[in-house]
Amino acid sequence: MSSDFSRASINLAEKLQRIPDLWQPRVVAEMNDYQFKLVRIQGDFIWHDHPETDETFIVLEGDLRIDFRDGSVHIGPGEMFVVPKGVEHKPFAEKEVKMMLVEPRGVLNTGHEGGERTAQNDLWI
Amino acid sequence: MSSDFSRASINLAEKLQRIPDLWQPRVVAEMNDYQFKLVRIQGDFIWHDHPETDETFIVLEGDLRIDFRDGSVHIGPGEMFVVPKGVEHKPFAEKEVKMMLVEPRGVLNTGHEGGERTAQNDLWI
Repeated sequence: MSSDFSRASINLAEKLQRIPDLWQPRVVAEMNDYQFKLVRIQGDFIWHDHPETDETFIVLEGDLRIDFRDGSVHIGPGEMFVVPKGVEHKPFAEKEVKMMLVEPRGVLNTGHEGGERTAQNDLWI
Repeated sequence: MSSDFSRASINLAEKLQRIPDLWQPRVVAEMNDYQFKLVRIQGDFIWHDHPETDETFIVLEGDLRIDFRDGSVHIGPGEMFVVPKGVEHKPFAEKEVKMMLVEPRGVLNTGHEGGERTAQNDLWI
């Protein structure tokens, strides 16, 4: 029972305001070996999947669409969705979306696809 | 890559409206072996800890105070906090608080304290 942990709450809107770039997730908290990441997105992403883990999307502002190979889901503010592991998906936001991702530490935004859309991982804000 | 998962987003406010009782967490989503639970609380809880896991609080409405043996944290709407594993804590809400908890499947609301405040676990809504 350590007493050296922070007693400060984490304000999501305040953290989001400090993220300058789109498609660049920033870690705001850890729970065991999982991370809570905030990200601002707009436009299209690439098709990818995460073979080893589910991925949670919690939308804070805007309307997120996640396309699957056989359909899509719309996620509005105050809504969430869990993409099962191994399921190919492609996030899309016509206007800017601010959202929180929850996933194990070490998960890349592009899964194992790599490429220029791969963001630097494990950056905190 | 299964295609039998739900394509419906999870609306947190709508789910919360369907929880009739205070202090009764309801599961709304799972990610790997973790669960997202919604709960409405008001008043005092009991001192407890979770020796095996961190516990995440995300406040949706109201002002939550979490007391520790040596201090406290205030968590407002749109704010979150992670209580480290093994740290004794006691949630308190002067007025009703609606919030989401994130923790591994199987975690009891009272940790290992037991007693009358222990809610039935793993109930979905």
